[in-house]
Amino acid sequence: MRSSQIVSRLARALAQRQGQGAQRWGEAQRNLSAAANPEPIAPQDDSLAAHKDGKVLHPDLLNENMRKTQYAVRGELYLRAEQLKQAGKEIMFTNVGNPHNLGAQPITFTRQVIALCAAPFLLQHPKVGELFPADAIARAKQLLGAFAGGIGAYQDSRGNMAVRQEVADFIKARDGFAADANHIFLTDGASVAVRMALSAMIRDSRDSVLVPIPQYPLYSASIQLYGGTLLPYELDESKNWALSIDSLRKSVASARAAGKCVRGLVFINPGNPTGQCLSYDNLRELVKFAYDEKIVLLADEVYQENIYQDERPFVSARKVMMEMGAPYSTGTELLSFHTVSKGSGGECGLRGGYIEMTNIHPGAVEEMYKIASINLSPGTVGQVAMSCMVNPPKPGSPSFEQWKKEREGELASLRRRAHMVTDGFNSLEGVTCNFTEGAMYSFPRLHLPPKAVAAAKAAGKAPDVFYCLRLLEETGISTVPGSGFGQAEGTFHLRTTILPREEKMAEFVKLFRDFHNKFMAQYK
Amino acid sequence: MRSSQIVSRLARALAQRQGQGAQRWGEAQRNLSAAANPEPIAPQDDSLAAHKDGKVLHPDLLNENMRKTQYAVRGELYLRAEQLKQAGKEIMFTNVGNPHNLGAQPITFTRQVIALCAAPFLLQHPKVGELFPADAIARAKQLLGAFAGGIGAYQDSRGNMAVRQEVADFIKARDGFAADANHIFLTDGASVAVRMALSAMIRDSRDSVLVPIPQYPLYSASIQLYGGTLLPYELDESKNWALSIDSLRKSVASARAAGKCVRGLVFINPGNPTGQCLSYDNLRELVKFAYDEKIVLLADEVYQENIYQDERPFVSARKVMMEMGAPYSTGTELLSFHTVSKGSGGECGLRGGYIEMTNIHPGAVEEMYKIASINLSPGTVGQVAMSCMVNPPKPGSPSFEQWKKEREGELASLRRRAHMVTDGFNSLEGVTCNFTEGAMYSFPRLHLPPKAVAAAKAAGKAPDVFYCLRLLEETGISTVPGSGFGQAEGTFHLRTTILPREEKMAEFVKLFRDFHNKFMAQYK
Repeated sequence: MRSSQIVSRLARALAQRQGQGAQRWGEAQRNLSAAANPEPIAPQDDSLAAHKDGKVLHPDLLNENMRKTQYAVRGELYLRAEQLKQAGKEIMFTNVGNPHNLGAQPITFTRQVIALCAAPFLLQHPKVGELFPADAIARAKQLLGAFAGGIGAYQDSRGNMAVRQEVADFIKARDGFAADANHIFLTDGASVAVRMALSAMIRDSRDSVLVPIPQYPLYSASIQLYGGTLLPYELDESKNWALSIDSLRKSVASARAAGKCVRGLVFINPGNPTGQCLSYDNLRELVKFAYDEKIVLLADEVYQENIYQDERPFVSARKVMMEMGAPYSTGTELLSFHTVSKGSGGECGLRGGYIEMTNIHPGAVEEMYKIASINLSPGTVGQVAMSCMVNPPKPGSPSFEQWKKEREGELASLRRRAHMVTDGFNSLEGVTCNFTEGAMYSFPRLHLPPKAVAAAKAAGKAPDVFYCLRLLEETGISTVPGSGFGQAEGTFHLRTTILPREEKMAEFVKLFRDFHNKFMAQYK
Repeated sequence: MRSSQIVSRLARALAQRQGQGAQRWGEAQRNLSAAANPEPIAPQDDSLAAHKDGKVLHPDLLNENMRKTQYAVRGELYLRAEQLKQAGKEIMFTNVGNPHNLGAQPITFTRQVIALCAAPFLLQHPKVGELFPADAIARAKQLLGAFAGGIGAYQDSRGNMAVRQEVADFIKARDGFAADANHIFLTDGASVAVRMALSAMIRDSRDSVLVPIPQYPLYSASIQLYGGTLLPYELDESKNWALSIDSLRKSVASARAAGKCVRGLVFINPGNPTGQCLSYDNLRELVKFAYDEKIVLLADEVYQENIYQDERPFVSARKVMMEMGAPYSTGTELLSFHTVSKGSGGECGLRGGYIEMTNIHPGAVEEMYKIASINLSPGTVGQVAMSCMVNPPKPGSPSFEQWKKEREGELASLRRRAHMVTDGFNSLEGVTCNFTEGAMYSFPRLHLPPKAVAAAKAAGKAPDVFYCLRLLEETGISTVPGSGFGQAEGTFHLRTTILPREEKMAEFVKLFRDFHNKFMAQYK
């Protein structure tokens, strides 16, 4: 009999004799084991192994970076909204850019192609042509040919090559410069792509990533999770959330003075939560800055289709960089992100994103591939949706007119809604709001009266959280407080999407106005 | 003019004067900046910031844990297979459990439901009933009702509650003990779920996770990626890859003696790559061990449907634990994983998995929820597939007979193939192979002659890698060398799936035999 077995039997006998029952076996065995013979199984007697309540996976004993991570979009406000919903209250979920949840309709062509890829046996059905247009059938056949094994099979961990080539063609058509499918990885949504890049880039807490304030909390959460340092640079609310290179220089200078290594620069264009569109010249400055300072650009361009004015159309960082010529076009390291979740399709649930890597060392691309491999394959349906987004029906094809109508109708409606929301906020006492030039959000500033701030303090809440919770309780409108995104000291904001359907928008604005007026009157 | 701008202009002037062209601006500016005025932007002049070739994202400068991570399933052998495929060679991809890629067909009901959820407008079409059975239509309507906004909308970050409840009902029916949907999270494949658990559990390199050897490299890769320590425990090949508690005790004892904190114990049942099924008694020992030693059990049960013998049917760790009663049923911390990728459906590409947490501290469950939130939502189509897997057509419903035939046909065929592959390997000179009791793999041992080992050494390859590469080059059969999974010192193995279709299996076995005989003759 092995000594460990002897110890175990002794422990059991001891426990039974002491009348402690089975519950105490483990502890008794550990005590005995330590006393009698530490060699076979030494106890883990320090506080690192288990909490005094007995739990190994105690929240206090989880990964520290994980514990410290905050994620506001689904934080306190969201949880309360879910509670209220379960209790039967009608909630308007404007806390997250989730268009279909508020009634947006998918692009029909995309869904037809997905349905046929999912059920390829329909392609053999004699009546398939009565339910599906010829171009959707052709696209499904083409994709099923390219996806060895169909959508039920793992694809290459970087995504299916045929779709990656379609993405490369889309980028080339958009920018006027060829793209290389080998440097494009498809991912389960852009968030996964961003996280992959950040996790590769961050080595320890010295490594820093420049992030705009206000920012989308994916960045703050992921940088914390991977143990890096978020280096804030402030957008200028007084100049419609302009991105200033001076602000970047200041951040980098102070970080370097503090011994940090500045590795990445995130910018979101169009902005989330701020809605601004960057000008061509601003992007040039940004590229030059990144090149000069040897910082990798992370271009979050997921809202590139969502533009609500004509002065500043979307221009990709890649296009600007290529047009600048050498050394910028050849030396700036750029990671660009896009998704099927936004745009006119709004296919959030299908999880289709990509990362494009420009001027990235081939060895680093290989490392990314290795890490992507651990999850084996991105989801195939997200890839099919990506194919349909980057390669939509062409003029003259059966689905073209419907696709055009659906796409343009949604974007035109969003443009109207951007105005309705901005105008609505600016008509309120104590609220100022920059126009939503792009993306899907409005980020009004709340000039809260001192009494409201005091009431929030008394309730143990940040003033913006206090406001948003009251808004939620009284109207069912679910928003995210500005503190979740970062905001200049002493200012308060909230983020709402502009996604309520047009026919509901008047109600949304009215609900908001009535609540706000009441709130302001209460704390006058 | 800001001092940084002055520096920039000076740098440009200097670079131009020196005829270095635009390429040198950055460098010149950095030099100048450092010399003239370090305050505005100090250069990052150490080797941590950029490689001497100029790249920030140089492979040598990426996250160290990422760089150290190895992932064999898509390693050297896979890359070579892809190369050969692109060069026109026919490759039999038996390196990864990807059934549809080798011709397995999906379960029709699942795909019908997905198609209807993707294209809900079909539900209004007068001919929908001619293309889809009534129960698929009903299920799609039910799911579309439960998914607010349909499959294009983000769901709760833990997955849609209706599907989580279906999973809970499935677990209850399987185990005889109620499960709580609040402790079940849906994920984009089981790999994501496993990684989420490991990333929460591992705090630093002191934290260790017991992993069987041979193992599925998801575990070794993820533990490395999160900076933990893999603590191997050997399965006994001579006893059909039995899991011995003694081996576990030894590993834990030596780890604790070395100051490690043993937090988790991974076991794979049925085994990957080893194919063994754990007996009820073995699982009892395992639960008791984990409880006594305060170690969290990670039960990789993704092959629970894939059983090819009757002596040891699949029993979940959860069922065993619950039947053991207190304190085990109430005190053992258990994480269980399942997926739509395996079983009879084999829907690898759809990425649907779940984690079930039993006896996990509610605060830790909340932390997991927070982390899941960063990616917003698991893919909806994977969730629909999960619904169909855990809640298939019931007897009497229109799709039941077809579902039953498809499911049982595939499992019966896999059972026959398990025998064909095992028998095939055991008929070869210098190969011994345990029977595939479950899962999808065969893991034969190659008793390589000394001359083959020497030839491998001369080629700079591990002997099993050498063998598998030769096999690939000569036959197009893509396998994974045993070293990717871990194997006892001085032994050599490979992993192949048993997934070639039955009609191709004879060819597969013959190709293998001819190659092997030639190889053995060469190095006799």
